[in-house]
Amino acid sequence: MKKIETNYKTTVEFYDLDPMNVVWHGNYIKYLEAARCDMLEKLGYTYDDMRIEKSAYPVAKMEMKFIKSAVFKQKLNVKTTLEELEPAMVIKYVITDDETGKKLFQAKSMQIRVDIETGETVYKASKTFLKKVEDFKE
Amino acid sequence: MKKIETNYKTTVEFYDLDPMNVVWHGNYIKYLEAARCDMLEKLGYTYDDMRIEKSAYPVAKMEMKFIKSAVFKQKLNVKTTLEELEPAMVIKYVITDDETGKKLFQAKSMQIRVDIETGETVYKASKTFLKKVEDFKE
Amino acid sequence: MKKIETNYKTTVEFYDLDPMNVVWHGNYIKYLEAARCDMLEKLGYTYDDMRIEKSAYPVAKMEMKFIKSAVFKQKLNVKTTLEELEPAMVIKYVITDDETGKKLFQAKSMQIRVDIETGETVYKASKTFLKKVEDFKE
Amino acid sequence: MKKIETNYKTTVEFYDLDPMNVVWHGNYIKYLEAARCDMLEKLGYTYDDMRIEKSAYPVAKMEMKFIKSAVFKQKLNVKTTLEELEPAMVIKYVITDDETGKKLFQAKSMQIRVDIETGETVYKASKTFLKKVEDFKE
Repeated sequence: MKKIETNYKTTVEFYDLDPMNVVWHGNYIKYLEAARCDMLEKLGYTYDDMRIEKSAYPVAKMEMKFIKSAVFKQKLNVKTTLEELEPAMVIKYVITDDETGKKLFQAKSMQIRVDIETGETVYKASKTFLKKVEDFKE
Repeated sequence: MKKIETNYKTTVEFYDLDPMNVVWHGNYIKYLEAARCDMLEKLGYTYDDMRIEKSAYPVAKMEMKFIKSAVFKQKLNVKTTLEELEPAMVIKYVITDDETGKKLFQAKSMQIRVDIETGETVYKASKTFLKKVEDFKE
Repeated sequence: MKKIETNYKTTVEFYDLDPMNVVWHGNYIKYLEAARCDMLEKLGYTYDDMRIEKSAYPVAKMEMKFIKSAVFKQKLNVKTTLEELEPAMVIKYVITDDETGKKLFQAKSMQIRVDIETGETVYKASKTFLKKVEDFKE
Repeated sequence: MKKIETNYKTTVEFYDLDPMNVVWHGNYIKYLEAARCDMLEKLGYTYDDMRIEKSAYPVAKMEMKFIKSAVFKQKLNVKTTLEELEPAMVIKYVITDDETGKKLFQAKSMQIRVDIETGETVYKASKTFLKKVEDFKE
């Protein structure tokens, strides 16, 4: 499968900070989700398309490495790479300071396709999804 | 209508704190929701019962007054008073330090009954809900 | 005092949704905070400037009216109006659908200036803050 | 080092749910943090003690496995095991349904001791912390 790479920009808001004046570690998952949705939108295969195909992609695994804490108003880039779609969707994420390029965080998620009617795992991606990946141009 | 008063206990967790080392102001809404759900559970009229009656009670208005900031590990009591059910559900909340009784926060919410099939506002509470309120013993 | 009006754009993310598939009511407070910080940035008087002047502006009151629920990926505009700075900072917010202009939500917050060294309330705004407001051009 | 095991009970609240009517995957991190703070409290070595020793323990790595989604009002048990303190604090977590014992989620976190004055990593735990672990009785 062709790898897809997209970049999502965000800015640290006050409500994401903790008493150490840095982003609370659990809030990085929000940046990852926003970046993933952004990638799916750019691919043209969104949550709505999944629903039409009676699929959902719940997160099954997540690994995160916290390198340097992000701070208030810092501009972040989340580089998001779709690595695999079968047997499961594997995505890698690297968050950097958008100005200096300094690496702050990295993660990897695995999401499993589930048939929302039967609840069963599906080890294949849909033809539509695979075609969108093949046709993707940055 | 008989007024109902219940008390919900909670403890401030680290993830609710902001850089000033106090509960971030937006997080009080979570305490209010948990206290409201607790009151409905004690009444015996939960979200499931609402759904069976094809009702939902979205929040229409909320007023909050922040008196003194809650801090890490502080034990809180949320006194929750159901004031009205018709034409809308009105609830008052007072958050105090559970040990000293000192008042930290107060709020008032108004929730409107909506028919989940037609989307229309319903200005009456269901007979079941009203009966549960009448039968309530603390 | 001259009134200041700014507009802040945001998009509804998946993590802000609740089981009704709309923005959970407590999450609007995050949009308000982001809009407020954006206004202060445009004014040139940020949290850092407050800290230099030994001031903080904790939220003392908040009133919210929920008119129509925002949905996934909806583009929102938060029109933010600084109404008063003395004796307290009063801000009004109107959230509309950024495309149709339809009103979804409105709120009003009151924040009180506090001297971070003594903890005392200050009923005057700093000269710097007042000047920034006077000099503001949209 | 002696392993420490504690159990923390919590209940799923409405505000933790997502549009699939299950706990949003990012919210499990809150349960882990609450369980960790609960373990430190039972050990008698809290965030305050860390601060006195000029230490902080930021999360450096986190691995999570989502097995079965938790639902509204489900009672959860978070079994928390302190595996290592040197060279870094390693904790394992297993979340089960508190009634059936069914496993829903597991995770592992690594936190690194940092000297809050110099910002440098410290590969040893403090004598106080190690003694608290040795003296711990469930």
